Amino acid sequence: MTGDNAQIFGEFIGTMILILLGDGVCAAVNLNKSKAQGSGWIVIAFGWAMAVTMAVFIAGFMGPAHLNPAVTLAMAMTGAISWSLFVPFILAQLLGALVGAILVWLAYLPHWSETKDQGAILGTFATGPAIRNYPANVITETIGTFVLVLALLAFGKTDFAGGTNVFAVGALILAAGLSLGGPTGYAINPARDLGPRIAHQLLPISTKGTSDWAYSWVPIVGPMIGAVIAVLVFNVMV
Amino acid sequence: MTGDNAQIFGEFIGTMILILLGDGVCAAVNLNKSKAQGSGWIVIAFGWAMAVTMAVFIAGFMGPAHLNPAVTLAMAMTGAISWSLFVPFILAQLLGALVGAILVWLAYLPHWSETKDQGAILGTFATGPAIRNYPANVITETIGTFVLVLALLAFGKTDFAGGTNVFAVGALILAAGLSLGGPTGYAINPARDLGPRIAHQLLPISTKGTSDWAYSWVPIVGPMIGAVIAVLVFNVMV
Amino acid sequence: MTGDNAQIFGEFIGTMILILLGDGVCAAVNLNKSKAQGSGWIVIAFGWAMAVTMAVFIAGFMGPAHLNPAVTLAMAMTGAISWSLFVPFILAQLLGALVGAILVWLAYLPHWSETKDQGAILGTFATGPAIRNYPANVITETIGTFVLVLALLAFGKTDFAGGTNVFAVGALILAAGLSLGGPTGYAINPARDLGPRIAHQLLPISTKGTSDWAYSWVPIVGPMIGAVIAVLVFNVMV
Amino acid sequence: MTGDNAQIFGEFIGTMILILLGDGVCAAVNLNKSKAQGSGWIVIAFGWAMAVTMAVFIAGFMGPAHLNPAVTLAMAMTGAISWSLFVPFILAQLLGALVGAILVWLAYLPHWSETKDQGAILGTFATGPAIRNYPANVITETIGTFVLVLALLAFGKTDFAGGTNVFAVGALILAAGLSLGGPTGYAINPARDLGPRIAHQLLPISTKGTSDWAYSWVPIVGPMIGAVIAVLVFNVMV
Repeated sequence: MTGDNAQIFGEFIGTMILILLGDGVCAAVNLNKSKAQGSGWIVIAFGWAMAVTMAVFIAGFMGPAHLNPAVTLAMAMTGAISWSLFVPFILAQLLGALVGAILVWLAYLPHWSETKDQGAILGTFATGPAIRNYPANVITETIGTFVLVLALLAFGKTDFAGGTNVFAVGALILAAGLSLGGPTGYAINPARDLGPRIAHQLLPISTKGTSDWAYSWVPIVGPMIGAVIAVLVFNVMV
Repeated sequence: MTGDNAQIFGEFIGTMILILLGDGVCAAVNLNKSKAQGSGWIVIAFGWAMAVTMAVFIAGFMGPAHLNPAVTLAMAMTGAISWSLFVPFILAQLLGALVGAILVWLAYLPHWSETKDQGAILGTFATGPAIRNYPANVITETIGTFVLVLALLAFGKTDFAGGTNVFAVGALILAAGLSLGGPTGYAINPARDLGPRIAHQLLPISTKGTSDWAYSWVPIVGPMIGAVIAVLVFNVMV
Repeated sequence: MTGDNAQIFGEFIGTMILILLGDGVCAAVNLNKSKAQGSGWIVIAFGWAMAVTMAVFIAGFMGPAHLNPAVTLAMAMTGAISWSLFVPFILAQLLGALVGAILVWLAYLPHWSETKDQGAILGTFATGPAIRNYPANVITETIGTFVLVLALLAFGKTDFAGGTNVFAVGALILAAGLSLGGPTGYAINPARDLGPRIAHQLLPISTKGTSDWAYSWVPIVGPMIGAVIAVLVFNVMV
Repeated sequence: MTGDNAQIFGEFIGTMILILLGDGVCAAVNLNKSKAQGSGWIVIAFGWAMAVTMAVFIAGFMGPAHLNPAVTLAMAMTGAISWSLFVPFILAQLLGALVGAILVWLAYLPHWSETKDQGAILGTFATGPAIRNYPANVITETIGTFVLVLALLAFGKTDFAGGTNVFAVGALILAAGLSLGGPTGYAINPARDLGPRIAHQLLPISTKGTSDWAYSWVPIVGPMIGAVIAVLVFNVMV
């Protein structure tokens, strides 16, 4: 595959891997009888960091591997990609996230009916607030995505040895999770939250509860604001 | 040593190191009176990740260091190695895994008789399902190996700085363990499971129970299917 | 931005990110209802390591990214920077640390009033001694900063591949935290302690207690002494 | 400093840093009222891995940075260093380990008298067996050092990008600790055990007990045997 099609397919497959491994670690920690059940925040944070690392390695030879609409917005604003790719990238990311969440459901198939905690099941797919306070939750997601995008832009000014840039992205996700994940579970990526939330709505899980659509706009709006602020701050820096 | 002999011996010694360190961390966490007893999933996942990293560094100058029949299958399918090496590689991997498991038995010699939990002893050698459901267990191992092989193929398209590729393999094993290890303990490698299971059958451990041969086909069939799917998906991507 | 202004602004924004992520992980672990509450020392140590890593990546294209008055002192002593930058760098670091702490307050906004433990709140901003003993506390901070600065000077003698030097800095912070953080919480950086302590004094947190100004000189004096000793020892080594 | 003097001084200062950070993490986890008390095996294993990483970075520009008599033995056997350096290197390593242990005592000064567990205090300095069985304990230390030295020899065949080799050494120590540290606490280095054991004997710690000299030969003999076996196996491989 070559050209725009390769780039768009890269966004699809990369985000699929991202959610398979990212929501996978949530399943590993949250679901009943999982061998990793209750293994805590260090497992969650490293799991998502390695999920992004592997997703970028797998999709990175096909295109820029944004895997995140907020990153795509920032990169279109800075001219790194054409605005004509904005909508196709985001659709590919959403579809990849949806398919990735379905793969998590398959990988942990016998564990869903063993898990009676509806919050644990929803938390395996989508993010949610530790304390529900929409303005504060938006601020948290905005700050987290601001750091994410500012660092990605700074990476572009770094002369990395081959492959090291992808580890830097992984370290960035580890940082975001460890430090800024406490209040909202660090979506910092609209596709990461919306795609799996749709999967949660659709999948036949007998023990699931509501998909909490009331919260679903927060991990979309916050990251998009954070990405814009990061681009503005970066323009002051360079 | 040079030529095919070096490559085959590399598979033997690399898989020996892989299992010595990989089953070693299972012993560290599972066995009674070990200083690392009960230290949890983060230790297991990092232990296996570092086990593969060191195995690939140690065997990497002798050959491709697959250390896994599913990887050998994929690499034969893509033409990276000759099919004539397929059987010798797998036999060397199996023998290496068997010897590695015996070294773990030696390294933890006084701890076996102190451990009365037969499941903990078997789990130090071979994998087992959190919830026994053969079709679901095969699906989990298939998905895990699909990610493993797809990433390894993508690494081949990455222009790594020296040594960084081996760290990428380690990060991949960390990802697989953290995110997809919950249901079946992530064999994702037929030799990793079968070799130590044979060792468990043979070794004189007074407190051991059954070697659970009924499950032994799952970590062979799942990974082989996953490897084939990964090659097919990768062929669409390139 | 270019020249001295860029370097000074780099110290500001880098230290801001350092404290946002570093005090952020303290908030994640300390504050009530945080998803990472009680996740322990491994999370703290990796959180600060990744905080410094990201801060150096983000500020590193603008200047030397000391982000620490003790490092600035050492680098002025060795001639790596001009003494004329000494005061501007330190002021920029302090201001950055203050702003970073305010961003942590914003990111965890609903969690402060849910946290009744005044020590947990102060410990999210500034460091404090496990056992209050000022001479001993100074010794601990001196030794920690000695290792920090000695390693940074040695990094200057290492021919790193691109980006790898920043990971080495992250590993150094991980080492300092894991090994030498037990007695005083490893400030090893006067700006890291003083800036957030001022923020703690100023911010409207209803559940906070004293800002413990009696201790505040320790994480200033200890690190400065440690930096001087490290330069002296390094001069013997080269 | 240049020539043999620089190499020997490098062994001294490198082993000093190794033990300051390595025994430092044992103090962090073992000693009463430490902020990291009870934080577990993952902290111990990462702490020692980072200790070696930093020690090698700090000493690496002065010489080969063995920091371990077993490694020095192997490197003399393979001709990587002259046998005339064998005794001076080992003496420098021992002295460095002794000074490093004294620095740990200083860094944790108020914590010793707060710690009543004599085993925790000795375990901060020297290693000890989980189950005392001298032949088995020697086997464990032999196997651990075999892996250590075999990997170091293989690293010599790897074309690392700058600095990456030191991270590989760190990953190796992480692997050894996670996987093979359970039975004896992985000395895998005679200087690492003997130097701090002498410090334990000498230092004025009111709450300490015996220095367990009966065990002290095990972490000397086992590692030396393991190093010899590794050289022999490596000679078969190349």
